Amino acid sequence: MLTSLTLSSWGFAMIPKTYRRVVLAKRPVGEPVEADFRLEQVVTPEPQHGEILVRVLYLSLDPYMRGRMRDAVSYAAPIGIGEVMGGGVVGEVVGSRHAMFKVGDIVEDRLSWQEYAVSNGATARRIDPAIAPVSTANGILGMPGMTAYFGLYEIGQPRAGETVVVSAASGAVGQVVGQLAKMSGCRVVGIAGGPAKCAYVLNELGFDACVDYKAGGDFGVLLREACPRGIDVYFDNVGGFVSDAVTLQLNTWARIALCGAISQYNADAPEMAPRLPGFFVGRRVTMRGFIVSDFAPKYEPARVLMGDMVRSGRLKFREDIVVGLENAPRAFIGLLRGENFGKLQIKVGAEPAGLPHPG
Amino acid sequence: MLTSLTLSSWGFAMIPKTYRRVVLAKRPVGEPVEADFRLEQVVTPEPQHGEILVRVLYLSLDPYMRGRMRDAVSYAAPIGIGEVMGGGVVGEVVGSRHAMFKVGDIVEDRLSWQEYAVSNGATARRIDPAIAPVSTANGILGMPGMTAYFGLYEIGQPRAGETVVVSAASGAVGQVVGQLAKMSGCRVVGIAGGPAKCAYVLNELGFDACVDYKAGGDFGVLLREACPRGIDVYFDNVGGFVSDAVTLQLNTWARIALCGAISQYNADAPEMAPRLPGFFVGRRVTMRGFIVSDFAPKYEPARVLMGDMVRSGRLKFREDIVVGLENAPRAFIGLLRGENFGKLQIKVGAEPAGLPHPG
Repeated sequence: MLTSLTLSSWGFAMIPKTYRRVVLAKRPVGEPVEADFRLEQVVTPEPQHGEILVRVLYLSLDPYMRGRMRDAVSYAAPIGIGEVMGGGVVGEVVGSRHAMFKVGDIVEDRLSWQEYAVSNGATARRIDPAIAPVSTANGILGMPGMTAYFGLYEIGQPRAGETVVVSAASGAVGQVVGQLAKMSGCRVVGIAGGPAKCAYVLNELGFDACVDYKAGGDFGVLLREACPRGIDVYFDNVGGFVSDAVTLQLNTWARIALCGAISQYNADAPEMAPRLPGFFVGRRVTMRGFIVSDFAPKYEPARVLMGDMVRSGRLKFREDIVVGLENAPRAFIGLLRGENFGKLQIKVGAEPAGLPHPG
Repeated sequence: MLTSLTLSSWGFAMIPKTYRRVVLAKRPVGEPVEADFRLEQVVTPEPQHGEILVRVLYLSLDPYMRGRMRDAVSYAAPIGIGEVMGGGVVGEVVGSRHAMFKVGDIVEDRLSWQEYAVSNGATARRIDPAIAPVSTANGILGMPGMTAYFGLYEIGQPRAGETVVVSAASGAVGQVVGQLAKMSGCRVVGIAGGPAKCAYVLNELGFDACVDYKAGGDFGVLLREACPRGIDVYFDNVGGFVSDAVTLQLNTWARIALCGAISQYNADAPEMAPRLPGFFVGRRVTMRGFIVSDFAPKYEPARVLMGDMVRSGRLKFREDIVVGLENAPRAFIGLLRGENFGKLQIKVGAEPAGLPHPG
């Protein structure tokens, strides 16, 4: 793909004249299809004063991106037709006119679905490759890890002996939620789709139980068997019928950390569901929606703590890495179907030679 | 109704040998009908050691009672078929073998739908008739008033300048919520059914706006006109489509104090409704269900404060008093239809001569 190389005056890396990116071709109706995206070849820009040029190594694919494909006001502005898809990345600084970053730095930044991207550095964060594989900055040590940490502790507020249920348990966020809750002395029950994910959650991550929502039969009965003392904390990533069943088994004073509702993201009109206000009143349930960036001022200490736990092996993680930017649309469509297994990322570019590979 | 009188050895009041009570005849299917209740004549018991006999003056009728007519576990145990309907009352102590209460005391207690009732005093509270009409101990200075106070302040947490919306705004709880929120410097918007209730809320209670949910047209549009800066606090007494419309207009960081859902109480199966999790996440909504007794340890100072405000006229209230225990079933059925106007009570017995009538 390197059509030509320049030896730039503003850096010392070899930069191709053009690169590939994925833009939103049209707004999906229901489940996205590959034709909703378009792979483009564009000219590599030069970073201007105060900017860096990032060569993307790993692109994070996350459920929230489905919301940005809609033409509707949300907490994030919608992506326009023809605009590049946004996303968190881990990349290598290959050009810098920014005082805080130098060529060779590995950064995590909120950029986009492309091989190269210019950043003003405002949301860029230099990462230490010695702590863990750099891709973890998109995962357990990045946005999903922070989501798990703050959603669980600030909103779920688990106490030892309580039962914590987390949906999408083998996913980027769920796997961290469950392991942290175990460390807090809770009974931890995951909900995941299929025997492989459930086995991983149970055997590798050490959850106490995992309920397969695709297993057939009465999901509520399976859940009740896994939660004989009811449910005190529900960390909800999926919404839908799974969450209804959890609601019916909440204990008095239960807390719901409402992180996402992936089961609903492809719906063009709200799904109809039973109203259950009586459970919320009678059991004094607190449900709180959150976005991880609400807790940004508290990230650093949490990241240090979790970095130590990752390095020591106390905190495990699983990533699902798909190679090639051209595969991002298909992988994203699969994410919304629950086809990924662990934190989904696209390997967009080769890691630079000489990166340590801890863990 | 006085079939005979006894001059009791355990008191000095004239007590009839029998009295009337209302029992649950059968479990309602959907909307209760009068045949679900039965008026009975029973023998007046003597209070035993540690008990009082209360002559009921006012019986409080409240939406939560519908839940107790169901054969389902809730926060309150269900009433058995043939058992007397439970309810809060204000009454006169007409017999006492209890060290803390004497004949002539006016008490508020959790008793039942009957003209006389024995109490062990555990939940009885002597009230001061000089503060306000004694019926207010079932209303603004009783359970509904405490519900408003703690639901608003502890859960709604209104700040000056915010917009507070309260449903069932002219009801026992809603009227207090709105007046307190006004005192806190909020824009206060009521939701009520019909022009008379809306006029009362607006003109008598001083809310900034009131939306008539029975007015026809697009309720969401009417609500938006009344809430030009969105909604920060929603005190929900009704649930259903009214609450859906409010949800769509919540501001970021909004709080929902989930007090009740009277629109749903007659439903034998949950009503189907659109799922709206995206609003809860994107706007970081906190929704918390509560029951007033959660705050019982804090009642006394709130009651003193509200008593002062009632006495001085800063806090207004409206009661809907229906005379005669035999009318309790019909009045209760009407309550669930929103036919009452203000705090619904049954005047079961005449107030004793010599009670002050403040206010």
